[in-house]
Amino acid sequence: MTASSPASSSNGMSRREELLAVATKLFAARGYHGTRMDDVADAVGLNKATVYHYYASKSLILYDIYKGAADFTVDALHDDPTASARETIYHFTRRLLVGIASDIERAAVYFQEGPYISEWFTEDQVAYIREKEAQVYEHVRDVIDRGIASGEFYDCDSHVLALGYIGMTLGSYRWLRPHGRRTAQEIAVEFSTALLRGLIRDEAVRESEPLGLPVEETAPRG
Amino acid sequence: MTASSPASSSNGMSRREELLAVATKLFAARGYHGTRMDDVADAVGLNKATVYHYYASKSLILYDIYKGAADFTVDALHDDPTASARETIYHFTRRLLVGIASDIERAAVYFQEGPYISEWFTEDQVAYIREKEAQVYEHVRDVIDRGIASGEFYDCDSHVLALGYIGMTLGSYRWLRPHGRRTAQEIAVEFSTALLRGLIRDEAVRESEPLGLPVEETAPRG
Repeated sequence: MTASSPASSSNGMSRREELLAVATKLFAARGYHGTRMDDVADAVGLNKATVYHYYASKSLILYDIYKGAADFTVDALHDDPTASARETIYHFTRRLLVGIASDIERAAVYFQEGPYISEWFTEDQVAYIREKEAQVYEHVRDVIDRGIASGEFYDCDSHVLALGYIGMTLGSYRWLRPHGRRTAQEIAVEFSTALLRGLIRDEAVRESEPLGLPVEETAPRG
Repeated sequence: MTASSPASSSNGMSRREELLAVATKLFAARGYHGTRMDDVADAVGLNKATVYHYYASKSLILYDIYKGAADFTVDALHDDPTASARETIYHFTRRLLVGIASDIERAAVYFQEGPYISEWFTEDQVAYIREKEAQVYEHVRDVIDRGIASGEFYDCDSHVLALGYIGMTLGSYRWLRPHGRRTAQEIAVEFSTALLRGLIRDEAVRESEPLGLPVEETAPRG
């Protein structure tokens, strides 16, 4: 989050941070399109002129939410290049899920408004977000490719699996709750273990017919 | 899809089906909130009175889209109860991905508008959709539980994995394309193989430290 003003409210956040947090909650619940600057001003308890002092337009609030989420996700990927591919995937998963659990509404706004951002953002803003998303995808794909190249992982379609992995982890904003029955850390262990170890116990079954059919009938790159 | 009128257009769809298909595309691109009945009428080439003849309100169009998608997903889960858990998961995945690829826009509308449906739908309509969603989640969870109970699968948190599986498969509407480089069927093989067999090749590594750490340090239910 960006904090441009020293003025701070009773809960220790700057006015701007508070405004951003309140707007994020409203956008998550009602949608960006369905939330007016008046609603934001009312909810944060400021007059509209003051809101415009911090953000010259509603779209700049949305962009701050987007930029914060995109930058966070890219930062979460930074990793030790000497780690094994499986460790890297586990640590990605853990950091991503812990981050999502810490700000579910930000993740919700990010995904809910995704299809429409080119309506609200400038070309440069859209390009910034798309570049960060490409980095996330490429980073995940590259770790899988690294695992395949070293012989740690089976041969597989790293492109498709990177996209599936992103859907599984980032898509968790739909149901992940900070005080749910399992912590974000525990969920990261479950997801990573399932993906890396597989669900099937029996080594022979796992090797010869993981889908219930002999591998050569089903898997093009088996 | 429901077809209530024998009147059909040049492409063989009934007027009502055509209207639904056009509205689905508009809602997917602009959002439900950002699409007016006038836009639907213009795009389908009917006057507004005719559109209202088929659908008394915009929300009834959205509900038809929702009901179609929810019913399809539940139908895709029907399976042979004597099949192994791994076969069942593979066939779910295949049918779900093939179905999504056949109507990406329907899936997009479903997920994009999800957070707001209680604003547009009646309580009964919301209850119908939530009931179908619960059936999908429970069906996936139950298959995983069946695999654990029979010894086919490792012990794991079937609740969390069912949610992750749904994010991975249904979340694919974001990037799945009917004429992409891999077919929906091939993607189903990749997803199912990764989840069921795991990525790690080496049996000893897989058993003892799937996350790069000894199992007892990381996995609460290892």
